[in-house]
Amino acid sequence: MQVVPVVLCGGTGTRLWPVSRRDHAKQHIPLFGGESPFQRTLRRLAEVPGLGKPIVIAGQSGRFLAADQAQQAGIDIELVIEPVGRDTLPAVTLGALLAARRGPDAIAFVLPSDHYVPDEAAFAAAAGQAVAAAAGGDLVVFGLKPTGPATGFGYIRPGAPSSGPARRVEDFVEKPDAARAAELVAEGCLWNSGMFAFRAEAGLAEIGRLVPDALAAVTRAVDSASVDLGALRLGDDFSTAPKVSFDVAIMEKTGRAVVVPADFAWSDVGDWHEIWSLAPKDANGVAVDGVAELLDVRNSYIRGAGRLIAAIGVEDLVVVDTPDAILVSRMDRTQDVKLLIDQLRAHGRTEADTPARVHRPWGWYQTVDLGERFRVKRIQVPPGKQLSLQKHHHRAEHWIVVRGTAEVTRDSEVITVRENESIYLPAGCVHRLANRGRIPVELIEVQTGGYLEEDDIIRIEDDFGRA
Amino acid sequence: MQVVPVVLCGGTGTRLWPVSRRDHAKQHIPLFGGESPFQRTLRRLAEVPGLGKPIVIAGQSGRFLAADQAQQAGIDIELVIEPVGRDTLPAVTLGALLAARRGPDAIAFVLPSDHYVPDEAAFAAAAGQAVAAAAGGDLVVFGLKPTGPATGFGYIRPGAPSSGPARRVEDFVEKPDAARAAELVAEGCLWNSGMFAFRAEAGLAEIGRLVPDALAAVTRAVDSASVDLGALRLGDDFSTAPKVSFDVAIMEKTGRAVVVPADFAWSDVGDWHEIWSLAPKDANGVAVDGVAELLDVRNSYIRGAGRLIAAIGVEDLVVVDTPDAILVSRMDRTQDVKLLIDQLRAHGRTEADTPARVHRPWGWYQTVDLGERFRVKRIQVPPGKQLSLQKHHHRAEHWIVVRGTAEVTRDSEVITVRENESIYLPAGCVHRLANRGRIPVELIEVQTGGYLEEDDIIRIEDDFGRA
Repeated sequence: MQVVPVVLCGGTGTRLWPVSRRDHAKQHIPLFGGESPFQRTLRRLAEVPGLGKPIVIAGQSGRFLAADQAQQAGIDIELVIEPVGRDTLPAVTLGALLAARRGPDAIAFVLPSDHYVPDEAAFAAAAGQAVAAAAGGDLVVFGLKPTGPATGFGYIRPGAPSSGPARRVEDFVEKPDAARAAELVAEGCLWNSGMFAFRAEAGLAEIGRLVPDALAAVTRAVDSASVDLGALRLGDDFSTAPKVSFDVAIMEKTGRAVVVPADFAWSDVGDWHEIWSLAPKDANGVAVDGVAELLDVRNSYIRGAGRLIAAIGVEDLVVVDTPDAILVSRMDRTQDVKLLIDQLRAHGRTEADTPARVHRPWGWYQTVDLGERFRVKRIQVPPGKQLSLQKHHHRAEHWIVVRGTAEVTRDSEVITVRENESIYLPAGCVHRLANRGRIPVELIEVQTGGYLEEDDIIRIEDDFGRA
Repeated sequence: MQVVPVVLCGGTGTRLWPVSRRDHAKQHIPLFGGESPFQRTLRRLAEVPGLGKPIVIAGQSGRFLAADQAQQAGIDIELVIEPVGRDTLPAVTLGALLAARRGPDAIAFVLPSDHYVPDEAAFAAAAGQAVAAAAGGDLVVFGLKPTGPATGFGYIRPGAPSSGPARRVEDFVEKPDAARAAELVAEGCLWNSGMFAFRAEAGLAEIGRLVPDALAAVTRAVDSASVDLGALRLGDDFSTAPKVSFDVAIMEKTGRAVVVPADFAWSDVGDWHEIWSLAPKDANGVAVDGVAELLDVRNSYIRGAGRLIAAIGVEDLVVVDTPDAILVSRMDRTQDVKLLIDQLRAHGRTEADTPARVHRPWGWYQTVDLGERFRVKRIQVPPGKQLSLQKHHHRAEHWIVVRGTAEVTRDSEVITVRENESIYLPAGCVHRLANRGRIPVELIEVQTGGYLEEDDIIRIEDDFGRA
């Protein structure tokens, strides 16, 4: 019996804007320092005995981050790319289909990539119970023991005992208001964690019975999938799958739902209020991550990005700074960051989705200064990567290497540019930057010209299929 | 009878931090767009008929800003540099001494450089009344008609009629609490504006009688003054003058105080609450200067510096962003920015006093990126200016000109570097940047090396006496 982890990695984490954005979502951001939630999820799974290679389901914008971060963590994954996010039913169906290929008895162990679970041993024990409960063909959900009357989660009412600690699910309860939440906690209901385990065949049978369109669409998408730079890229049929959650479409409808009660520390890190709850705080209830100077500040979360944040006389406030956007929110309104993002998009603000530091498959860049006819970028290329062979019609570029050694192709020349050396790339020249060394190449690029946007680029050759 | 404006320009405007800082104070910052308060003060004076050339009293850190901004405004000034700020009594004494040199009947018309007075005609009319009242030898203060029970100003109780609209001062009242302020307004008291007019001889006589040490110290400082790059630099004796305000030391003690009631719009722009009061606001009472995205925000002031500021559910809040520091303050605590600055200084934070854009006599620079062994600066040099001839032990510099044409001296060479050209300055080379052209030179400097602080500089020659 093989247990196959299915890591859902396609979320966009918009409620942690401006740190988390569509193009660089929270599961890839070291929210608490060190490794990212995605990397910690992979490590947590590695502590559970007997699991197979994790299937990671990522979106288009997160695929290179997922691959790079798994590689950095030294954990081998099977990466699958959703052409478009369709909520959790299609993703879970996909995970079950791919798990079923590993063997007729395979159990899919489905979990999000962005949860905070500090106690790996307790997690491993609960995972073992869930897998045991799933072996008989039931669909198992982890039910977390509530630590308070939270209104941000659905609740599960456990019913008759099933095998071991598992209980039949009597009822799923939608996110409640505060009064109802307190009642549910008193009645012994559990938080719906969004983590599931089931025999792949059993899960697919229920999906096929309850939402046959979903199974059909995802099956077609898998059948027409192609291998793309080491990942499996699903066919376009995926986008025809119904956009619905696995909870609503399957767990709430099936007669085979059981819940395994779990009692480890857990958070879905759903908004800044939650981050504040988890963070270490001073005697005034203030959590600071960064450089802050405070005068009479209480019950607040302050997160910087290098700049000094000074605050006077505020309470119950969230202040989050990033290189291109600052959020100031009342602590009890942090769920509304989602509405703010909608408003930003409606106003055409690119800050809604794209961070200042833009990750590309070859590394990253960040605009550090912008003037009337110039733009200054900091660029980093990890060892072994190279940008596309490219040219620009409207801009010239000066590259000054400040770390590592770059190999620069300029028309017919190939030039080695070392730390503290520079090279000039006139408009129209065909050029490429490659890092053949053992440490990252970091450089400052000064662009000059009348038009300095990203779309002035002609790619002649590319490692990442963009030419 | 000559009227000599004395413009007090030595203030540091700390309560408007982080926009205003010791090294670039609010009188030199275009707080409401367009010209700076100092420039508007000079223009306002230019509208008053019959005034002589203004005497501008600046501090060491503001002297080049004052000179440059007066020149930009096309107004000729007599610039005097206080070696150290000693509150207003020494500055007013200095103004009176210099005014007295213009003629035996000279009238000193003393005013701060950072006040907001939109109606120049009303100001000119009141100035005429004050000068007329001063002609007989009285010491005249402008008393502004209160627009509300402000607690941030001293009050003046007018007494018996003097000449014209002037009244003898019956009493000066210290900054009151809110209840007392309401009583004072009801009793017909006026705001003490900090603007004065008096015959220079009469003022000096009162100063000599009431605070002889001040008159003696300032007289010695003037006698030992030297001419320094077109300004008068006072001798060190200035620092021995008592540090006290002209109001407290003279106006509250003299028997010759009269008040000229004035009724024009006026503000001392003393804190962010005041800026918010003066700024245009939307229906929710929110004033925005910059790029903001707001959700349920009320009665707040949002000031950006390029970055997006997003706010949710806050009210009575001030958010002010600058390239290196952000302030978030309750609206009714903006006076406490002063305490915050003390705290910043105690913690050794340079943001307390020095802005990201550092003004030098030759132009300005701003660090736009900083890494482990590199620093990137944007540098601007106006036409006709040049930096010192200098060298650095520990850093090399790459200069990329992005606007204008630079003349670069590098050891024995003199090289013209045009827009979109670059030059390399190895560590240890003797170099200089000069702008001989008609438009500003703007360049990106990339420094590399193990030590990248400002004090790695040896000046061999300098236009500004720093070699």
